[in-house]
Amino acid sequence: MNWKTEIEAAAGRIAGHAVQTPVMQIDGFGLGHPIEAKLEQLQHTGSFKVRGAFNTMLSGPAPDGGYVAASGGNHGAAVGFAAAALGRRAKIFVPELAGAAKIALVERTGADLSVVPGTYAEALAAAQAHEAETGAQQIHAYDAPATVAGQGTLMREWEAQGLQADTVLIAVGGGGLIAGALAWLQGARKVVAVEPARAPTLHSALAAGAPVDVEVGGVAVNALGAKRIGQLCFDLAEQHLGACVTVPDDAIIAARAALWQERRLLVEPAGAAALAALMSGAYQPQPGERVAVLVCGANPDPDPL
Amino acid sequence: MNWKTEIEAAAGRIAGHAVQTPVMQIDGFGLGHPIEAKLEQLQHTGSFKVRGAFNTMLSGPAPDGGYVAASGGNHGAAVGFAAAALGRRAKIFVPELAGAAKIALVERTGADLSVVPGTYAEALAAAQAHEAETGAQQIHAYDAPATVAGQGTLMREWEAQGLQADTVLIAVGGGGLIAGALAWLQGARKVVAVEPARAPTLHSALAAGAPVDVEVGGVAVNALGAKRIGQLCFDLAEQHLGACVTVPDDAIIAARAALWQERRLLVEPAGAAALAALMSGAYQPQPGERVAVLVCGANPDPDPL
Repeated sequence: MNWKTEIEAAAGRIAGHAVQTPVMQIDGFGLGHPIEAKLEQLQHTGSFKVRGAFNTMLSGPAPDGGYVAASGGNHGAAVGFAAAALGRRAKIFVPELAGAAKIALVERTGADLSVVPGTYAEALAAAQAHEAETGAQQIHAYDAPATVAGQGTLMREWEAQGLQADTVLIAVGGGGLIAGALAWLQGARKVVAVEPARAPTLHSALAAGAPVDVEVGGVAVNALGAKRIGQLCFDLAEQHLGACVTVPDDAIIAARAALWQERRLLVEPAGAAALAALMSGAYQPQPGERVAVLVCGANPDPDPL
Repeated sequence: MNWKTEIEAAAGRIAGHAVQTPVMQIDGFGLGHPIEAKLEQLQHTGSFKVRGAFNTMLSGPAPDGGYVAASGGNHGAAVGFAAAALGRRAKIFVPELAGAAKIALVERTGADLSVVPGTYAEALAAAQAHEAETGAQQIHAYDAPATVAGQGTLMREWEAQGLQADTVLIAVGGGGLIAGALAWLQGARKVVAVEPARAPTLHSALAAGAPVDVEVGGVAVNALGAKRIGQLCFDLAEQHLGACVTVPDDAIIAARAALWQERRLLVEPAGAAALAALMSGAYQPQPGERVAVLVCGANPDPDPL
């Protein structure tokens, strides 16, 4: 696949539908050096996921059976939002562990919502059964080319906004976001994968030489708690990934608190994971190495209002 | 006073101390047209106030008696932050009505804090008494040239970031922020003052032909509840102001909720007042008129963490 071409095409499709999110230089956080940040949590529905959703929908006509997706919350909200924006139908399966705030977020998009007992894996099974029954078009949360190409528009946009960093830290769940970044950059900058210690899907896959099922838990589980890394992500990571680090829950909680207290960015735990890798020392830049963090999600539970 | 020259000098002084806050285009909010926004609530201590504080402090040597300020919370936090950053001392008088979250915000800066029964006016009296007793240098929250010139750097920065708007809406309390904008723009764009209906200091002054005391209250009182508009602001408003509108508390609350729900910007009521003027129709742009809102403060009570 020619990812650069796919991502360019995706950027053309989603222009005017996804928000061009702002970038800023931030300092503090006990780091002793400023870092670049992209505030992708200010995207529609509070996460990058609408990029992949719009790209998938705008790649073809409206399917007769509508769209179906399984999601820990953010992807479902994105699919629901994009479908509503385009006047199309969407059915979303969300696991109970998504939590009340994310379930409400999906509901507000107007999508047809089903809450499934269990984790993301159970919601995915339900979505696949719905697809088989109805012929609805499945929009996978991370392991589909149109999803990855859509997420890849983020790194393209960031470079166009003047990204300077040698190294970019990105949180990983199922791997759609980092896959898009790796696909766009093709090794041009160092990409560091950051996973919760309690949801090490990419770390485990790299150790095993192939995607494997892992136990998932922890404070970011509803966003980063895919049971198995996507194959597309795994293949791109084997080719281009610079490093893969894990961060404990307390480091994620501390980074989330610091983003609010020092910079008034209110995010969900997953949105703070990349910064947590720097604050905790899980990733230690070399002297002079310019680093950037992607702030990717802003749907906390409970909702602050 | 040559305001343009003063603001250019202020920008040079505060460079590297204040954050260059991001701008973005936002749509939604039931408006039917996109608007430009500057996210100044991502400034150090969550408001624009550090601009004036740094400019004042960097305009002269450290005073023997330190600095003193009265504040509804945001200005006090800014003076405390700037003093700590420069290794200087600050004494801050805050009225009880500032609320627990803002009092904690001032405290975290390490400033010497006194909580005064009553409103901003009582805190100001206490600060003036402290100044007379100790020789500390007073940093006025809004009615001093160095404060206004510092806040004026915001509009200079926004124009350098590519501001397109014909019209900029800005919330008004004591008037330091809008005074800085008027001083920089000198009529080059239309500036609309937005006041809470329950704290109409500028509106009352313009009606009376001079600054007058008003009763203040409402959801934004700790930020926009100055009893009387600053003379510097009043003079600039008489020369250059495009319009002055008021918004009821429920419009401010609705705009604050929309900023979170639609764009994941968590702000205090004052930070949502400018948008409230558009959402409520208090200010109705002409067809084709390009508008921008300044998001100016992000220190809500209670604190979301």
